Amino acid sequence: MTLTGEEIAKHNSKESCWVIVHGKAYDVTEFLPEHPGGPRIILKYAGKDATEEYEPIHPPDTLDKYLPKEKHLGDVNMDTVEQDEKADDPEEQERQERIKYMPILDQCFNLMDFEAVARRVMKKTAWAYYSSGADDEITMRENHSAYHKIWFRPRVLVDVKNIDFSTTMLGTKVDIPFYVTATALGKLGHPEGECVLTRGAHKHNVIQMIPTLASCSFDEIVDARRDPQTQWMQLYVNSNREITKNIVQHAEKRGIKGLFITVDAPQLGRREKDMRSKFDDTGSNVQNSGGDNVDRSQGAARAISSFIDPSLSWKDIPWFKSITKMPIILKGVQRVEDVLLAISHGVQGVVLSNHGGRQLDTARSGIEVLAEVMPELRRLGMDKQIEIYVDGGVRRATDIIKALCLGAKGVGIGRPFLYAMSAYGLDGVNKAMQLLKDEMEMNMRLIGCTSVDQLTPDMVDTRALSSHNTGVPQDTLGLNVYDPLSGPQPQATKERSKL
Amino acid sequence: MTLTGEEIAKHNSKESCWVIVHGKAYDVTEFLPEHPGGPRIILKYAGKDATEEYEPIHPPDTLDKYLPKEKHLGDVNMDTVEQDEKADDPEEQERQERIKYMPILDQCFNLMDFEAVARRVMKKTAWAYYSSGADDEITMRENHSAYHKIWFRPRVLVDVKNIDFSTTMLGTKVDIPFYVTATALGKLGHPEGECVLTRGAHKHNVIQMIPTLASCSFDEIVDARRDPQTQWMQLYVNSNREITKNIVQHAEKRGIKGLFITVDAPQLGRREKDMRSKFDDTGSNVQNSGGDNVDRSQGAARAISSFIDPSLSWKDIPWFKSITKMPIILKGVQRVEDVLLAISHGVQGVVLSNHGGRQLDTARSGIEVLAEVMPELRRLGMDKQIEIYVDGGVRRATDIIKALCLGAKGVGIGRPFLYAMSAYGLDGVNKAMQLLKDEMEMNMRLIGCTSVDQLTPDMVDTRALSSHNTGVPQDTLGLNVYDPLSGPQPQATKERSKL
Amino acid sequence: MTLTGEEIAKHNSKESCWVIVHGKAYDVTEFLPEHPGGPRIILKYAGKDATEEYEPIHPPDTLDKYLPKEKHLGDVNMDTVEQDEKADDPEEQERQERIKYMPILDQCFNLMDFEAVARRVMKKTAWAYYSSGADDEITMRENHSAYHKIWFRPRVLVDVKNIDFSTTMLGTKVDIPFYVTATALGKLGHPEGECVLTRGAHKHNVIQMIPTLASCSFDEIVDARRDPQTQWMQLYVNSNREITKNIVQHAEKRGIKGLFITVDAPQLGRREKDMRSKFDDTGSNVQNSGGDNVDRSQGAARAISSFIDPSLSWKDIPWFKSITKMPIILKGVQRVEDVLLAISHGVQGVVLSNHGGRQLDTARSGIEVLAEVMPELRRLGMDKQIEIYVDGGVRRATDIIKALCLGAKGVGIGRPFLYAMSAYGLDGVNKAMQLLKDEMEMNMRLIGCTSVDQLTPDMVDTRALSSHNTGVPQDTLGLNVYDPLSGPQPQATKERSKL
Amino acid sequence: MTLTGEEIAKHNSKESCWVIVHGKAYDVTEFLPEHPGGPRIILKYAGKDATEEYEPIHPPDTLDKYLPKEKHLGDVNMDTVEQDEKADDPEEQERQERIKYMPILDQCFNLMDFEAVARRVMKKTAWAYYSSGADDEITMRENHSAYHKIWFRPRVLVDVKNIDFSTTMLGTKVDIPFYVTATALGKLGHPEGECVLTRGAHKHNVIQMIPTLASCSFDEIVDARRDPQTQWMQLYVNSNREITKNIVQHAEKRGIKGLFITVDAPQLGRREKDMRSKFDDTGSNVQNSGGDNVDRSQGAARAISSFIDPSLSWKDIPWFKSITKMPIILKGVQRVEDVLLAISHGVQGVVLSNHGGRQLDTARSGIEVLAEVMPELRRLGMDKQIEIYVDGGVRRATDIIKALCLGAKGVGIGRPFLYAMSAYGLDGVNKAMQLLKDEMEMNMRLIGCTSVDQLTPDMVDTRALSSHNTGVPQDTLGLNVYDPLSGPQPQATKERSKL
Repeated sequence: MTLTGEEIAKHNSKESCWVIVHGKAYDVTEFLPEHPGGPRIILKYAGKDATEEYEPIHPPDTLDKYLPKEKHLGDVNMDTVEQDEKADDPEEQERQERIKYMPILDQCFNLMDFEAVARRVMKKTAWAYYSSGADDEITMRENHSAYHKIWFRPRVLVDVKNIDFSTTMLGTKVDIPFYVTATALGKLGHPEGECVLTRGAHKHNVIQMIPTLASCSFDEIVDARRDPQTQWMQLYVNSNREITKNIVQHAEKRGIKGLFITVDAPQLGRREKDMRSKFDDTGSNVQNSGGDNVDRSQGAARAISSFIDPSLSWKDIPWFKSITKMPIILKGVQRVEDVLLAISHGVQGVVLSNHGGRQLDTARSGIEVLAEVMPELRRLGMDKQIEIYVDGGVRRATDIIKALCLGAKGVGIGRPFLYAMSAYGLDGVNKAMQLLKDEMEMNMRLIGCTSVDQLTPDMVDTRALSSHNTGVPQDTLGLNVYDPLSGPQPQATKERSKL
Repeated sequence: MTLTGEEIAKHNSKESCWVIVHGKAYDVTEFLPEHPGGPRIILKYAGKDATEEYEPIHPPDTLDKYLPKEKHLGDVNMDTVEQDEKADDPEEQERQERIKYMPILDQCFNLMDFEAVARRVMKKTAWAYYSSGADDEITMRENHSAYHKIWFRPRVLVDVKNIDFSTTMLGTKVDIPFYVTATALGKLGHPEGECVLTRGAHKHNVIQMIPTLASCSFDEIVDARRDPQTQWMQLYVNSNREITKNIVQHAEKRGIKGLFITVDAPQLGRREKDMRSKFDDTGSNVQNSGGDNVDRSQGAARAISSFIDPSLSWKDIPWFKSITKMPIILKGVQRVEDVLLAISHGVQGVVLSNHGGRQLDTARSGIEVLAEVMPELRRLGMDKQIEIYVDGGVRRATDIIKALCLGAKGVGIGRPFLYAMSAYGLDGVNKAMQLLKDEMEMNMRLIGCTSVDQLTPDMVDTRALSSHNTGVPQDTLGLNVYDPLSGPQPQATKERSKL
Repeated sequence: MTLTGEEIAKHNSKESCWVIVHGKAYDVTEFLPEHPGGPRIILKYAGKDATEEYEPIHPPDTLDKYLPKEKHLGDVNMDTVEQDEKADDPEEQERQERIKYMPILDQCFNLMDFEAVARRVMKKTAWAYYSSGADDEITMRENHSAYHKIWFRPRVLVDVKNIDFSTTMLGTKVDIPFYVTATALGKLGHPEGECVLTRGAHKHNVIQMIPTLASCSFDEIVDARRDPQTQWMQLYVNSNREITKNIVQHAEKRGIKGLFITVDAPQLGRREKDMRSKFDDTGSNVQNSGGDNVDRSQGAARAISSFIDPSLSWKDIPWFKSITKMPIILKGVQRVEDVLLAISHGVQGVVLSNHGGRQLDTARSGIEVLAEVMPELRRLGMDKQIEIYVDGGVRRATDIIKALCLGAKGVGIGRPFLYAMSAYGLDGVNKAMQLLKDEMEMNMRLIGCTSVDQLTPDMVDTRALSSHNTGVPQDTLGLNVYDPLSGPQPQATKERSKL
Repeated sequence: MTLTGEEIAKHNSKESCWVIVHGKAYDVTEFLPEHPGGPRIILKYAGKDATEEYEPIHPPDTLDKYLPKEKHLGDVNMDTVEQDEKADDPEEQERQERIKYMPILDQCFNLMDFEAVARRVMKKTAWAYYSSGADDEITMRENHSAYHKIWFRPRVLVDVKNIDFSTTMLGTKVDIPFYVTATALGKLGHPEGECVLTRGAHKHNVIQMIPTLASCSFDEIVDARRDPQTQWMQLYVNSNREITKNIVQHAEKRGIKGLFITVDAPQLGRREKDMRSKFDDTGSNVQNSGGDNVDRSQGAARAISSFIDPSLSWKDIPWFKSITKMPIILKGVQRVEDVLLAISHGVQGVVLSNHGGRQLDTARSGIEVLAEVMPELRRLGMDKQIEIYVDGGVRRATDIIKALCLGAKGVGIGRPFLYAMSAYGLDGVNKAMQLLKDEMEMNMRLIGCTSVDQLTPDMVDTRALSSHNTGVPQDTLGLNVYDPLSGPQPQATKERSKL
């Protein structure tokens, strides 16, 4: 039997809450309090079609997995469902206007340009999810600015006619020393989600790391692969190890070449920009609530935060080694002591990372940690025993080169490709990767190195890297009374002021 | 006999000055020159009802204590008193408008948010009193920004399923390692004053420190306690030691568990924002006055600054130990030499503090002093002989964690709760404390520690902490001629500019 | 015979140029090319009354000294001289409007406040002369901000009831350790010029240093003294040593107690703000001129720059000692090597100074040089052999205290008193000095010192003092795409945006 | 036979593309794909007169050299060619307006002032080419701001009456220790191009370095020389060494006194400001293009980037020594190791340079490299074996003095003279050089040195020079809630706000 919109519309309250997703109705009344993203966001769609909101932040099989069969109410005659009127949302109208006149792809000359465009053409909540970081977003920004504390010591008069910046990562030959790191919820940016990145990675012969929290299903992303193409998998470890085992062994079977276990997110971070954006979207007609009755409408980040085991520890590493032959890499290591532990636990690699600044604020940048790690590994003669990767804040080929000079095997890049994809789809991703290759070729020449093995610590000056200066707060009064110098003024000004 | 408003209105000058407070009339003519806040502020209300202005900055028993009985003129028939017309004060009207549309509590995601709201809804003079600091307010701001010079070195792969961030302070078990530090004049922010904080502290099981300069009387605040609940007392020492003795022994009798003697305020600081705000309120119709005849209308800060003994010294400590069994803690210590003196004088604790940046400008932040103190104490094997607290600038759970990593037993938080209370009352205070707990739980997980004893110096990188860089003054001309890079521009701009 | 305005007006060109000053006419045709300030500024007044422009930048006896008697044409009937119409100068009208509503003196709470007022009520050219510095004015600003790199290490629990911050300078007992340093052209700010400062210094019992380039004559300033009052004299050394000898010996006869020989100005600095202001005033109707024919209209600074001997050297010091018994102090020393030379030449003191940032840009601040000088003197056991003063950038009592902690005997303060005088006359100067005394008393208490001899190096943390960090230039693109966090928004905004 | 505009206008497409340059027609259809600046810029002028665009960026003999004779179609009757209508370009109209009221030359008081004027009166694309740098332009700006990290330690009481700041460079006596360094495409700024600089250099007796990529031909620039005048030549080395040999030997024959081989540009840099400006000029009516089909419209920089041999290496140095007797100097050395290599290869000099920040971003400033190089050379006793020059960011005489104190023989200055020339022609260049001489004389006096050999390392404090601090990213929320101090407000404001 097919349900009608009218019938569903009656179930529009906490007491009885039905929603439509992809043409089917579901009774989520009892599920409301358990929803990781909080009940409010569901109640906004009580009695209505929630597909658009639901789509990008839930993998395809979510409802099957988590909602009992008897709550699946069956097909809906969509002709009978009232369409939400968006026409009168001035914010959305402005966004459509911006899309209409958006810059063409040729106007993007670097990775920041994609971000500039994406910020203006993405939906506000999607932008907030991608662009937000933990607390004051200090670490998120430090990730990039840390690279500006490293300066080059280029060599000259080296024959740089032929440049080869290919390398290998975990045994895979790649064109350029970066990989597409795992980022969640790709469909917030593009209807085809992570598969767009798969295609871009193939074209440029770089590795894609598949996220656990993809909008596409794992198999969809693997199916998008065009061999020979290498994919890795990022893993959030479920408390139920059986589930984890299935995921890992399925991945190995599907040809995944590296297992990147996330270790910096025992709990998903608070990202206030994301929370505030979500609040704005849903909260405006709700009147207050005391301190006792906090509604945790915490944005997209929290909506996907369940099912991560906070008790994961070093003791679990042998078990992972027992269930898979894939190389194991720990993603999110942040101090040299833990790199040494990783080596002693026999893993193949670590990613020095703070999760894009989305977890712990004022955690140090990966590149700063790298500068702490490598001298110690070299001192101990252990620098060949493990592959060290770094991610966070990489925007320029010079950043990649700096990381390699300091000893990284390669760098992960995430958000920039999401922005390129959100703004221009596959063309954008391809352009972004091409720009990095163009920059890479030029900058390898300019520092006087023809291959990545020539990128050594003496090519950079890192003395400032661990400075974390906030500056003395300014004396406002003194600044206000200072009369700044001005340059020559047009004569017209003077003439006119005398009229 | 009941007085009439008409009669009182005649005494509206320096020569004869009567005022009404809480329905009673007082002759303050002779008191004018002695008023700590200066005569001008009283003269503004000469012949009028001063209750609203008087209320928040005078403890309930002030008039009884300081004005001779014969100047108490008796009850006033308030029906005969003309009401001040405020309707035409555009500033107040705008404030009322802002209150009407103020953000709801759910929109506050961190402690700064309460401050943002309070700034817009508080009376200007009340805001100025709470938010002001000494001189250029450099220390006040440094207090918070100093925390940004400390960066984390988190551990990963630690089982952080169960987190316990409770601790003990002076023997009291508390839920989270902060206490509500003493701040004056709570009724400037909320009609129920400090008692609101008492209730919040109870709910979240943290300790409240009762200020000497509360708007509520000491007993009112103690009466608001719901046992088991611990309170401490902050003490300004009166020149008349008998008064001080009575205060201290009364406090001990009422169950106070710690005596925090303020040692950083032999004289109350000059806070120009406060002074200027007070001037604006009273000074606009007064015409000049030479350098000789300075009217010291110095804001709320000075209005309460009498009765503090500037001769208090180390020699007085034994006397305090002789009159009470409460633990004695020195609040406002600012160098390691004085911490050693404190230990040798046998006190139980010190608070490394600069009084919220309200006393001596360019004094170092408490957290910076902590980083100077603890290594020296450890070197001398004295770090267990005393409890070290720190206050000033704490706004995030990460700040609390940093202080504990460096060796603090706990941190004091003051202004943020005042702002939360001023904006949202008890709900605000509860929400603020809950936010800190939420942040605390997450951030303990993210640095890989499950209890406060695991918070050790190796968890943080403090190399930048004592940098006080002002930066080279900028070359304005050079900056002005630099043509900054811009990103891709919408096509529309170009098209339109050609029309 | 009395001349008429009509007659004089005919001599209005380079070929024949007469001007009126104080009711007398002068033929300056031949003097034009020699005028230190350039001919253009005189030609502006050719055939007219130049008194107003002439007055503040020439000492009273200038014309007698430098213009041959036969060029003194005699009295003018001023009734016959056309008055310049200023009514239609919109800039001047705006200034008069600003003066009308200027803040009253009670609104000034610190020394910066006088500057803020002066900037708005002074004539533009006068403001430019006082406020300008060399080149990019980097040193000028660094002078003050250097103090913000010094942080206090205050002592607590010291009996600070009685504070005495008096001291002695070159044997004179003063109330507070600052003196009024020499600044030129006082009548640009006030019609009574430097004598106003004499009166203020007397009232507050501090020493005034009389400038060579005063607007008042030396004797006028000495005559304004009310004994017991101490004055010093600042000296620009004339190439003609006979003139210098007369000046020095006359000063000694008139009771001057210290001879401060300026050693940092062999040539007066280029101050572009001053030059540009002067240009704007005179240049607007002049059409161009090639690179060959540069008219050096270089502002007030250059107008007074003659008669300074650039060949002055260490060899001249014995001669100075031979002509006077006054203590000799070298003003403008900037490195420790030269302090040692000064000691070996037997002078009584040095002022570590960069001339208020008006001479050599990116010269170090006096306070930074002091921190270089004193440890070396102490190491050599020479710190008692000379009195070290410092000037430049002192705006707060905390600045004075810092200088004394580092070893200075006292500090010179110049511009702030000029601004106070320009805005409010003697009342302003008195208020400014009183504010410093008030701040001084409080801050002595707050650092726990009761007399100036207790101000020792351990009271301050100077580790950052010699940092000259410019910061990495910002990545504009990255900053532009960053979406800064915002706080809670008023509900109204949202509601209204939906209308 | 003379061609008509009508006829040419038919060949306006990719399929058949004719253009007019200086009254002659050329068939460039087949050349389109080879054009270093990309085909799009040519297609914009297909069928039209391209002279104005072509002129400044191609040396006079370009067409003869690179386009086969049979594509030279012969003379055009220019009366038959339609003139482009510019009248309706609002940007150009605004520029003409700005030129009309541009400041007169006397309003320029320093080198930055010329840049300020040039920015407003130059064509946007010309400005973009001159003013742009690599990537984020961090190095470009650091070049100047690095000088602000060096502070003076001036000597006083030195007889500085007579100052001599002349010096010798590669044996040539010059008035002041700077030379006009090579910059490309002078006709973008002035119709007479580099010859203007030749004349200015002659007048002020400084050396001009002739650029390979001049708008004028090499011989034109040499012909503009008025002996005795010294010129050097900057060389981009062609892959075809025969061409290079001819250029070098021709130069030697024409009296060039130094051969500066550029070693920091094996590939010309990406300058996004330039690329974006070029795009804006040509790209607005082109609709998109995928990532595959990138049109590399890369601005003027790329348009001239062919013919540079990226395989140039140390092995080529002996060959250069074999073909010329001119001193050989390597321009663009950036680390001490390469200076040592230069010495061992027997060259006469190096220029520590990063190509004006136009090549590798976050390369260190020349002045910073100098501070690394000289102590090492002195340690090895090799500092007399080579002449060290530095360029980049020099804007003030103090900058020149700092470089000499650190050990440079002289400094190169490029852009400032281009800006002076673009704004004011030869008069501007002369004025700019005169300003540097004026500043030089004064600042030599002020640091107490009478000749350049007295400029020694102890005259400067360089401790901060290698700091590359980015500062901790600011906590926006905290900054936003801070209520900055304000100064005294005019009474009027208050009064009016009460109306």
